[in-house]
Amino acid sequence: MSDKATPTKARRASEVSQWDREADVVIVGFGGAGGCAAIEAADAGAQVLLFELASQSGGSTAMSSAEIYMGGSGGTRVQKACGFDDSTEDMFTYMMMAAGPQADEAKIRNYCDNSLAHFNWLCDLGVPFKDSFHKERAIMCLTDDGLLYTGSEKAYPFAQHAKPAPRGHNLYIEGDNGGPLFMKIVTENVNKRDNITVEYETRALSLIVDDAGEVVGLVIRQDQQEYNVRARKGVVLCAGGFVMNEDMLKKYAPKLLTGNNAIGNPGDTGTGIMMGMSVGAAAINMHEGFITIPYYPPASITRGIVINDKGQRFINEDVYHARLGQAVLDEAGDRFYFILTVEQYGDYEKFNFMGADIAGTGETVEELEEELGLRKGSLAHTISVYNEDAANGEDTQCHKAAEWLEELQPPFVALDITPGRGVFLPFFTLGGLDTLPTGEVLDAQRNIIPGLYAAGRTACGVVRRADGYSSGMSVGDATFSGRMAGKQVAGR
Amino acid sequence: MSDKATPTKARRASEVSQWDREADVVIVGFGGAGGCAAIEAADAGAQVLLFELASQSGGSTAMSSAEIYMGGSGGTRVQKACGFDDSTEDMFTYMMMAAGPQADEAKIRNYCDNSLAHFNWLCDLGVPFKDSFHKERAIMCLTDDGLLYTGSEKAYPFAQHAKPAPRGHNLYIEGDNGGPLFMKIVTENVNKRDNITVEYETRALSLIVDDAGEVVGLVIRQDQQEYNVRARKGVVLCAGGFVMNEDMLKKYAPKLLTGNNAIGNPGDTGTGIMMGMSVGAAAINMHEGFITIPYYPPASITRGIVINDKGQRFINEDVYHARLGQAVLDEAGDRFYFILTVEQYGDYEKFNFMGADIAGTGETVEELEEELGLRKGSLAHTISVYNEDAANGEDTQCHKAAEWLEELQPPFVALDITPGRGVFLPFFTLGGLDTLPTGEVLDAQRNIIPGLYAAGRTACGVVRRADGYSSGMSVGDATFSGRMAGKQVAGR
Repeated sequence: MSDKATPTKARRASEVSQWDREADVVIVGFGGAGGCAAIEAADAGAQVLLFELASQSGGSTAMSSAEIYMGGSGGTRVQKACGFDDSTEDMFTYMMMAAGPQADEAKIRNYCDNSLAHFNWLCDLGVPFKDSFHKERAIMCLTDDGLLYTGSEKAYPFAQHAKPAPRGHNLYIEGDNGGPLFMKIVTENVNKRDNITVEYETRALSLIVDDAGEVVGLVIRQDQQEYNVRARKGVVLCAGGFVMNEDMLKKYAPKLLTGNNAIGNPGDTGTGIMMGMSVGAAAINMHEGFITIPYYPPASITRGIVINDKGQRFINEDVYHARLGQAVLDEAGDRFYFILTVEQYGDYEKFNFMGADIAGTGETVEELEEELGLRKGSLAHTISVYNEDAANGEDTQCHKAAEWLEELQPPFVALDITPGRGVFLPFFTLGGLDTLPTGEVLDAQRNIIPGLYAAGRTACGVVRRADGYSSGMSVGDATFSGRMAGKQVAGR
Repeated sequence: MSDKATPTKARRASEVSQWDREADVVIVGFGGAGGCAAIEAADAGAQVLLFELASQSGGSTAMSSAEIYMGGSGGTRVQKACGFDDSTEDMFTYMMMAAGPQADEAKIRNYCDNSLAHFNWLCDLGVPFKDSFHKERAIMCLTDDGLLYTGSEKAYPFAQHAKPAPRGHNLYIEGDNGGPLFMKIVTENVNKRDNITVEYETRALSLIVDDAGEVVGLVIRQDQQEYNVRARKGVVLCAGGFVMNEDMLKKYAPKLLTGNNAIGNPGDTGTGIMMGMSVGAAAINMHEGFITIPYYPPASITRGIVINDKGQRFINEDVYHARLGQAVLDEAGDRFYFILTVEQYGDYEKFNFMGADIAGTGETVEELEEELGLRKGSLAHTISVYNEDAANGEDTQCHKAAEWLEELQPPFVALDITPGRGVFLPFFTLGGLDTLPTGEVLDAQRNIIPGLYAAGRTACGVVRRADGYSSGMSVGDATFSGRMAGKQVAGR
């Protein structure tokens, strides 16, 4: 036996000479997933030990807007109050389309069937939502409104298959302050439960497995000292994703290397995923991530068109911003632009979330073509087709919804949205450990690894692709999957 | 201890009551990688046990054309005889571009630096190459010529960065018979070495690990009986990829689900990769695969244009067929067509490797637009731009090389190359265990797992993306990486 644990490499139980601590349930990470897992496990009667690397709770959830994607079953209280009827099937269809061919149907089914109950559970914790609808197309809700569209629900091709409903639930607080408020409430709920002990500034090093391959504990480090923690029922990994680990990004998610702003907390180094892998767990969907060009507000940008270096349109500009970002990454070409009228450009500079520079302007389309180095006539052709379609109220080429169509008249402004040329490209990972809807971790052949659970970004959840992402799916998945894992491990 | 091994799940050495067999080096899989690994290990003095699931050697290498991608160092004997000078740097640059952001520079460097030596080693084994150049653009060489272009070397953007050279080496045999001949020669070389024992119809079930995490053996099954095989120096996994495992495809490589023809042998079920994962090895690049629309011959198809459902071109049609296939998969749109003149269509029906149906014909471009349901004027615009470019000898839009440019004049034929509508989409996997250039298998933190090696498709090799693939890279990588692993394990 080595005295020092090699981080993430499993330790054999037979090498443990002394158990320093013990609980029914041991949870790694006190963000949204870990907090909710702890509450559920405690409420099911388990004694819980919750370890957090940082000196306080929060994780990436506290850094986020904490919109929560919920609906179905006729609608949440907020959806109903705002006049939206939302069926579970529409939500399920939308989320299945969003997850694409790698969708985990069982997980999405479970999420949608229990989404209303999840809303109610959060309300019972004390999470406040105002019964009001935010009409503006927004990256995040800066008002205290409780509900908004946060995805591509109203856009092609989603709207053709699932009746749109807004499902982004925003906390009752002004500004982009949902994350801190949400984690404050979760932390208060954790703290008032006597059967949860939280220890901060604690690094989870390695899982401990017995000879039968069961996970029976965790090696932690506090103040340079290692301790062996026994988990009578199991260990729940809620340690975030791997967006802060460059080596892992290069190995697993090369497309994210195009991004220039890693979204997450400093602990998102993939240690939870690697601890799982060390005992044979399968990490799946590791190549996928959220990557985006946050091009609105102002919403008026949506009325412009995106073109490539051939002057061609290729995406309906009314989709969720990450779907557009992914489309730009997938599209062949050396340059990409948003072409806008002066009116559409509007108060862009006031927001400019996307940091795109002006690549050119033109009193005429010919002038703009020349400034952008586009082939003569290429953009002119695109705009002429677009204008004809706009006049007819139907975008025959990319299917942007009629409400966003208007003829483009000079003078024009072009914003450079070419990745690598200044445009803001935030990103995070969407791969993780393969789990059942219960949070039980699976090996490569989908056998359950006894005693091991994962939730939040350490697991591969309901949301699996940038081009189907909707805001609120991450915190929705983190909190929901945390609860599932907490319940399951406590009942073991 | 359980008496029966759970397939791919590691067995503890402490649970082994009896070692049934023993050798220095134990190799799983007798395809190109396993055969070459066995020869190198044996020539380094090791006693080798080689297990194969099938009743004969071959693997996927025997099913392939067995083109081998080699060059650099001034050129192989065949390259030189055909008048091609090939620098290691050009080969390295091309292969780095081909592998994209997930390139393993150390592995590609090692491959290119030692490619000429690999050619000579194969010649010494008795692998015959004729000193002749095959000029035609071909999916595979049906003549006995020894050398041909098998990738996108002469196409944009590769040719702009690396001086093109043909590197596909084809065995000296008529027809598509290189694979069987290659494996016959490798098998003869294996058989004549006294220190290699081959056992067929043997299933490798699980690795055996000791308490320090070292791989010390392998559980095999023969005639319903399990045996514990001790490996004094190590186990080399050469068990192929996972193209025949639908569950794994869905979990790891969803884009390949679009394909309709899995290329590989029935043993390509991912067991080698899963055995590695069971002891903590990292499987990387699992989402990637080769997927293609094999649209030539006849080479004249290259003179046509590929369009999407907006009538737009998006790819230079002179690239390697898998690069075009990947571009079609990445491109947004519901329909994709090859637009050809009658002359370009030529003797397409005689070959028709791609199985594409005629979607429409037109005496005029307007007629074709109508037949294909394209927006009026869309294809007309594309063709008018293309014809102007062709007249000027420069494809300003997609950079197809001048030799393939010619004005498109009606009547036209359109072939439907939309995935899912009949077009042939062969595919295989390009993900596998993370290894050093030596074949040593790595865990999630890139620590070496002692005693474990992998080569061929079980490892993640030099070729990592469809859009940079060139024929010959797979057999090149399998044979070369097999040799590296065989040498390394024998020297342990």
